[in-house]
Amino acid sequence: MRFTIDKNQFLKGLLIAGHSIGNKNPNPMYLCFKLELTARGLEITGSNGDITIWTLVPNVLNDKEIIRNSSLGSTLVNAHVITEVVRKLEGEEVSMEIIDNVIAKIDDSKATFKLNCISAEEYPHIDFEKAGNPFVLSCGDVSALVSQTAFAALDKDTRPILMAINLRAEGGKLTATATDSARLSRKSVAVDPSLRFSVNVPAKTLADIVTLFEGNDSVEISANAEKIIFSFGTTLVSSRLISGEYPVSSSIIPQNFSFFLEVNAQQLLGAIDRVSVLATDHAPVVKLSMDDEQVEVSSTSDQTGSGVERLTTIQYTGERLEIAFNAMFVTQAVRALGSEDVVLSFIGEMKPFVIRNPKDDSVVELITPMRTR
Amino acid sequence: MRFTIDKNQFLKGLLIAGHSIGNKNPNPMYLCFKLELTARGLEITGSNGDITIWTLVPNVLNDKEIIRNSSLGSTLVNAHVITEVVRKLEGEEVSMEIIDNVIAKIDDSKATFKLNCISAEEYPHIDFEKAGNPFVLSCGDVSALVSQTAFAALDKDTRPILMAINLRAEGGKLTATATDSARLSRKSVAVDPSLRFSVNVPAKTLADIVTLFEGNDSVEISANAEKIIFSFGTTLVSSRLISGEYPVSSSIIPQNFSFFLEVNAQQLLGAIDRVSVLATDHAPVVKLSMDDEQVEVSSTSDQTGSGVERLTTIQYTGERLEIAFNAMFVTQAVRALGSEDVVLSFIGEMKPFVIRNPKDDSVVELITPMRTR
Repeated sequence: MRFTIDKNQFLKGLLIAGHSIGNKNPNPMYLCFKLELTARGLEITGSNGDITIWTLVPNVLNDKEIIRNSSLGSTLVNAHVITEVVRKLEGEEVSMEIIDNVIAKIDDSKATFKLNCISAEEYPHIDFEKAGNPFVLSCGDVSALVSQTAFAALDKDTRPILMAINLRAEGGKLTATATDSARLSRKSVAVDPSLRFSVNVPAKTLADIVTLFEGNDSVEISANAEKIIFSFGTTLVSSRLISGEYPVSSSIIPQNFSFFLEVNAQQLLGAIDRVSVLATDHAPVVKLSMDDEQVEVSSTSDQTGSGVERLTTIQYTGERLEIAFNAMFVTQAVRALGSEDVVLSFIGEMKPFVIRNPKDDSVVELITPMRTR
Repeated sequence: MRFTIDKNQFLKGLLIAGHSIGNKNPNPMYLCFKLELTARGLEITGSNGDITIWTLVPNVLNDKEIIRNSSLGSTLVNAHVITEVVRKLEGEEVSMEIIDNVIAKIDDSKATFKLNCISAEEYPHIDFEKAGNPFVLSCGDVSALVSQTAFAALDKDTRPILMAINLRAEGGKLTATATDSARLSRKSVAVDPSLRFSVNVPAKTLADIVTLFEGNDSVEISANAEKIIFSFGTTLVSSRLISGEYPVSSSIIPQNFSFFLEVNAQQLLGAIDRVSVLATDHAPVVKLSMDDEQVEVSSTSDQTGSGVERLTTIQYTGERLEIAFNAMFVTQAVRALGSEDVVLSFIGEMKPFVIRNPKDDSVVELITPMRTR
């Protein structure tokens, strides 16, 4: 294999495929990229066994020659090392040549690197066969499904299925649900009514995939019982699924409430941020005290003291209510809604409450309160 | 104690004094600020036992009233908590009032905090008596003494005295020396010829102090056998010294060399950075190979491969020489010189070499080479 390639396009491809590579892996193949120069261009594959990314650096892009002076072939090279070498080279073009199947010689006009490499035949077989009936969504819809829910997934593997986002297509809606069992986030977008499936995709994987969408408008998705494949631009991402039934019914969101608070999102976030400054543990508890005269956000710590702030731009409907919650849960939920105002709807002091954007009913955030002291 | 204070000036004072406060300290007093409202203004004192900072927020600054509505007094309050509370308040003014000696009530127009506090009498006695004959230096000179040497001090306490910068006044020069025994940095500035002392100040403390100089032109320094005091603007910093004889003689820098390389600093740094990308350990070894035809920077790792770069803007005088070194040592030394070109002077393959700015002989960096493989 031999080629001369535009440095920035090469680096871009390496960085995309690099999203699949961790710092450690018991299988050394999963710390390597497979580089394969074919008639289409340079194909870069990276995998950690759970997520696999394939991306193509094409020979020609927007009428500009990206790859020249090429001789087809393939190799495996340490992903981290080649990415850092290419990143640090200063030339506009980089040349790469495999010597005796064991040395990848990389140079620009100034510096020369000889990287240890091995035969591409050592690489595990990767199957990018479409997984099921493919459907197409806008990148914006997929990004919203993920960014408005992923933060609510469990971040430790005490219950692996809760580390997933459940994607469920039914009745013309694709709904993403994530929960760590103390809170739940749900977002829906419209899809073809014929679409019907339910899969559990690791939330961290999805959050990572949507960062790769830049420059693309739409993404093709296909899923079966084992895997889900995202295809956009010249990139394919395949992720394993988490098996099992997702333990949340579609009717978990309460529908009837007695208390309603509409408030400016930034003011609520600012007040929670300020009063939780006194918290001495990692999950500050903040209390909302509401009646028809005033709404206060407060927090108390035996060790450091107490803080209270009155909200001004509010509209409250209901009897007097005090409700305490994990400050981070409400902060992340309000941020995820991304709206100017938010509506909090309550049933009672110890019942889960929901937070919504009053102008968008496609997303709902459900939070279990904490016991007030 | 009661006062209303300009929020930004209050925060500035808290942040200055906060440089003395660590995250943990067996003595809870050392996690507190002493706040004392006197006729001069608000005096804030913080200490961790080794370094103590006192700073004054004056009643009036540049004809602007900073503190008003005041009633003298004092208290002790958790340093981290009050700093974060004041940082997060949004009002231009903050009011503080001590209630029953146990509550510090802090509010702006929107939020109210009640912080636990205790009587200022609990605070350890702090002695800011001048330590010896004071002398005045420009802040720029002190910053240069520190920033051009501190990185070479030992960063672990296997040999505490090497964690210090030695400041030695003699013969009209104040010389800062730092060494971890594998490299040494030395910088001198002119002082009054009558000045004569030698003290060992913790390098980390000095590096921290110089960051507080902003907005000041000169600093008054006084030292005795136990402590050194820096006085600038309305701030005093007192640091304990490390006792013992500094184990480096003034004649440690070799004077006669056989090989000289003059090179553009950025080019040398760039080449070292690029070739050391292949290093798999934390102290990458880089080699300079020099003769009258070419100078190459290279690095080899059994695991990943090798990289080599030829330097172009060079002038080399001497026989062929190969010398290997810790890439970080040379990088930090060249950066500390801050010059366009640097001159490396060598005696031989295994002898310490020096790096200088050809236009400034007040600073010298000495580095012990490593064995080439």
